[in-house]
Formats: sequence, structure tokens, C-alpha cells
Amino acid sequence: MGEFDLIARYFARPARRSPLGTGDDCALLAPAPGMQLAVSTDMLVEGRHFLSTVDPARLGHKALAVNLSDLAACGAKPLAFTLALSLPAVDEGWLEGFSRGLFALAEAHDCELVGGDTTRGPLNICITVFGEVPAGAALLRSGARAGDDLWVSGTLGDARLALEVFRGTLGLPAELFDIARQRMETPTPRTALGQALQGIATAAVDVSDGLVGDLGHILRASGVGAQVDADAAVARMRLPAHPLAATAGLTPELLRLCALSGGDDYELLFTAPAERRDAVAAAAQRADTPVARIGRIKAERGLRIVDAGGAPVAQRFGAFDHFA
Amino acid sequence: MGEFDLIARYFARPARRSPLGTGDDCALLAPAPGMQLAVSTDMLVEGRHFLSTVDPARLGHKALAVNLSDLAACGAKPLAFTLALSLPAVDEGWLEGFSRGLFALAEAHDCELVGGDTTRGPLNICITVFGEVPAGAALLRSGARAGDDLWVSGTLGDARLALEVFRGTLGLPAELFDIARQRMETPTPRTALGQALQGIATAAVDVSDGLVGDLGHILRASGVGAQVDADAAVARMRLPAHPLAATAGLTPELLRLCALSGGDDYELLFTAPAERRDAVAAAAQRADTPVARIGRIKAERGLRIVDAGGAPVAQRFGAFDHFA
Repeated sequence: MGEFDLIARYFARPARRSPLGTGDDCALLAPAPGMQLAVSTDMLVEGRHFLSTVDPARLGHKALAVNLSDLAACGAKPLAFTLALSLPAVDEGWLEGFSRGLFALAEAHDCELVGGDTTRGPLNICITVFGEVPAGAALLRSGARAGDDLWVSGTLGDARLALEVFRGTLGLPAELFDIARQRMETPTPRTALGQALQGIATAAVDVSDGLVGDLGHILRASGVGAQVDADAAVARMRLPAHPLAATAGLTPELLRLCALSGGDDYELLFTAPAERRDAVAAAAQRADTPVARIGRIKAERGLRIVDAGGAPVAQRFGAFDHFA
Repeated sequence: MGEFDLIARYFARPARRSPLGTGDDCALLAPAPGMQLAVSTDMLVEGRHFLSTVDPARLGHKALAVNLSDLAACGAKPLAFTLALSLPAVDEGWLEGFSRGLFALAEAHDCELVGGDTTRGPLNICITVFGEVPAGAALLRSGARAGDDLWVSGTLGDARLALEVFRGTLGLPAELFDIARQRMETPTPRTALGQALQGIATAAVDVSDGLVGDLGHILRASGVGAQVDADAAVARMRLPAHPLAATAGLTPELLRLCALSGGDDYELLFTAPAERRDAVAAAAQRADTPVARIGRIKAERGLRIVDAGGAPVAQRFGAFDHFA
């Protein structure tokens, strides 16, 4: 199968929103009047962002999900994406699964494939995603103010437990591993929540490298500090609350590590004034996405991690760094 | 050096056109009123699109040039780009050279880096480029009509001669090899010509996989055929006209292969009505880019390749296919 046959068979779809989709030198996009285009790019490499054994449909889902998550963090509504794909060989079973998982998520978010590139080489998936946000309404990292609440959506840390099982540092009962693996392999981009938080959240970021690392981006961009309740973060994990968890050897240190610097969560971490708690709750309800308060923004620089009683937690937490 | 240090040192630039450049979850772009955004993505893989020994500054140039060439083929004015980079290791000499070559071309085309991604993995460069074109004015592949002239910009085929030297199938005197290698490694995207051809060209494509293959895109999209003068195409090559060429063993068959299906030219191939020849010439002069007529669009489907006397050329020509 040649390059153009491959595109026609697995990736061609009738153009919808784009005046010109796959098939010309460029795709053409026009945001509606008064809207800005939000753009983000993520590259996924085999062995680093996913295992070679991953189900291709889940990989197709995840490759787009991590990009949609960036749109969510800006409060942008998904519009379109481009896909560049380097493949070691034309494996039709793999392409069928990958494109199925990719388009299922794309259609769920009304996000259209408008262009791309395919080539032979080590497996590499690079997606650039486009969203629309009213001019001036994008959620930035730089708007957090002292006194703001610190919120997180959904659940944290379970994806990291799956990674530790794959790495062989942890054993889990099959039922727990399945839950953790699903969080790792098919994250849920919080695009509805991001849009609902326009005008409410003062800053937002998506949690990809771990809560501590990604919170650091908000703190640096906003010139503030924060206090985070480690136990409130651990309480966002799904696995410790499971009836089978008691037998799984999940130490308090491991749980804090996973919740605070686990990575691969693709939840929204955001700040909002304390007097907007009702508005945050209403936005979360509209987006059908649970949210929880896990800390507070402080004027004093630096990050202070405390337990439920307010005492400092001694454990050290970092961010996931692809070059460390 | 970590991921964020690497970005700060080699790829951070003050934001200009984008309201929000590198450093938040998304970049924000807003085309001017009445303008559409033209978007294109190209992925370059080591060993397939470039040799591991290539000078990193030339590679930085080429990675952006092949993307700008897609904007040129749509007649779009370059605005911005994102860069996703997978690197086997942090090699500061390589990064310095690559970013220098990349930004030199970006600045020459007033095209701003607005976001990206870096990770560790096999060397892979994925750029998505954004340009601006008045709504409805983009040059498409679908507008060629029977009777239109077929034009090509600049020079053809010399890049392929360099590739054949690297492959060991051809020897060239050093002076000739340098010219061919420069065409292969630092192509010139024809963005000024593309914009100048708005309202004049009826269809356009950039020549990346070879003239015959890329012309095929226009013929299929427009539902027409064409006759191409192989000798007029060979006359666009630089090397055969060089005083040293006589000793270089450049057979007529090799020259036709290079001119018609060499690839890596990044010239514009376009069609225009015969009565607009003066307008094409004026556009080429405004863009300071030579153009030449090499054929004509026909109502009868299929591609007919003839010599200067109008006799069919028996040699077969294909397109470069990354999966063939």
C-alpha cells in the first residue's frame, strides 16, 4: 500500500467544518468573527509515551486526547486537527485500530481531521489541534492571585499506578490494574469543563507531567506560591477507595507520589477566587465533571505541601521530564 | 539539560504576532478579518528525509522550508509555526545549529514560532505552519482547465542529482556536487510567488515528490489531463548548463528522470490561462522568481510526456512514495 492509498483508506473523511480538508497543500480554517484560534502540538514516541504493546485503538484515542486536553486547559472548543504519522511498516490491523480509536474520540468532541503527513520511520505520532475561544477569554497560566482556591477535576494518580505495574515495581489485582490501565491508556480530555470555566477560573493548566510540575507552571507564570493538601490530592485517586485496595500494598508514600507527581492524568488544574465557589460548582455540573479543592494560592512564592492537619509533608515530589 | 531549559535556551523568542506564544497550553492566533488560515504539517524523519550527516543548520532551514512551500502552493502569507522535536539526546552543538538555521529562514519569511513539544526518541521533526490568505483566494489543486498553460518556478531536478551522489550511483565534480547539494539541503520556498499568483493561477501545487507525481494531484483534482515537454523541464536544471557538466556523465535519461520525477525541488507547479501570460510574468517579476512554461492542460485525461519536437518520450516516470 502506498502513502496516498493509506491516507485514503484509513484517514480520509468528508470535509465538514473546514472549507478544505485533507487533500490539498493546506487546509483552510476560519474562526468565527470575534474568536481566536487556540493551537497546540504534542508528539508521542513509542517506548516513551506509550508501550509498543498498547492496543492501537487506545493509542489513537490517547494521541488525540492529550492534545484536546491542551485545548481544555485554555477553555477552547475543539474544531480540527492535523495528524503526522511515522510508521515502521504498513500494518493494516494496526492502522484500522488506531484510526478507529482516533476518530471515535474526534467525533465525540466534534473535532475534524483536516490534514497531515505520513511517512516511514520509527513509530511517532504528532498531532496539532485547533480550537476556538472568544478573543480575550482564553484561560491562561498567568492569572492566579493570592487567596484563589486551587481546584482539580476528576481523578489523579491512578495512571501512574499502572505505569509502575508495567515497570515491575508494583503488583496489583487484575481488577485494580484494569482501572488504572484505563486511566493511563484512555484519558478523558476535559474540554467541556474548560469551556464552562471561561470567566470563572483565573488560571488553568492540564496535568500531564504531574500535579506538582504543572502547578509550577501556574505559579511561575502568575508570580505566586501555593499550599497543596497532599491528603486531599490522594483522596482524588480511585484505587485506594476500592474494596480490593487493602491487599494491594499501596503505601501512603506511593499514593502521595502518584497523586502529586504521577503524570498522565490529563485533568484540569485551575484556580478561582474563593467567592466564586458556587460558580465553579455550577460549571462542573454543566460539564458533568467532578471537581475538588486541593489547596490555595499564596502571595509568598514557592510550593508548600501539607497533610490534612496542615503539617508539612517531608516527601519530595518532582515533575516528569522527558529529558531527565 | 531538562526539557524546559532546552526550550528556553534554543527555541524561546519574544512573542510578536501571536497574542500568546510558546509557554502556555495553547498558542492563540487570530487571522485578520476576511482572511482564512492556511494550515499544513510535514514530518521529517532521519534517514528518509535527511541524512544523519547533514549540517544541523541546513536541516533547520529545510524542516521549515518544506512547510513554507505548502503555504506558497496555497498562495498564503506565512504567519506562524509550531515545532515538535524528538531527539535521541541533548546535543547542544546540534541544537544551536538547528535552531539557527530554522530561525534564519523563519525571520526571512516573518514567520513566528508559537508553540511546540520536545521529547526524547529517534530524531523526528514535525512542523505545522500557519499562513493567511483572503477568504476564497487560496490557490487550490482543483482549478486547472483545458487550455491552461503549465508553469514551473525556479529550477528542477538538481536536488535529485545530489541524492544520487549520496546513494553512490553517480559521481560529480565537487563544484557541481556543491550546487546540487545546496538545492537538496536548503530549498527556497516560493512564498512571494504564491501570493503574487493569487487571482492569476488557476491551480498550484509544490513539487516535493517530483513534477510528474505532484502534477498528478492537479490533474486528478481538476479532472483534466496534460502534456509536458520533457526537454523544457530538463532546461530548468542548473547542472547540465554548467561548463563542467560535459565531463559528469549526465545522460539524457538521467536528466529527464531528475527533472520529471526527481523530488525535493520545492518549486511551484501551477496553471494559468494562456491569455494571462503577461500577468504571470509580472507576478514572477514582483516575486523576483523565474518561471517557465513547460506544458499545457488538456481536456483528455492522462499525462502525455513529449520531447521538444512533440514526439512521445518512452521513459517511465513515477512519484517518490515514502511507503513504496
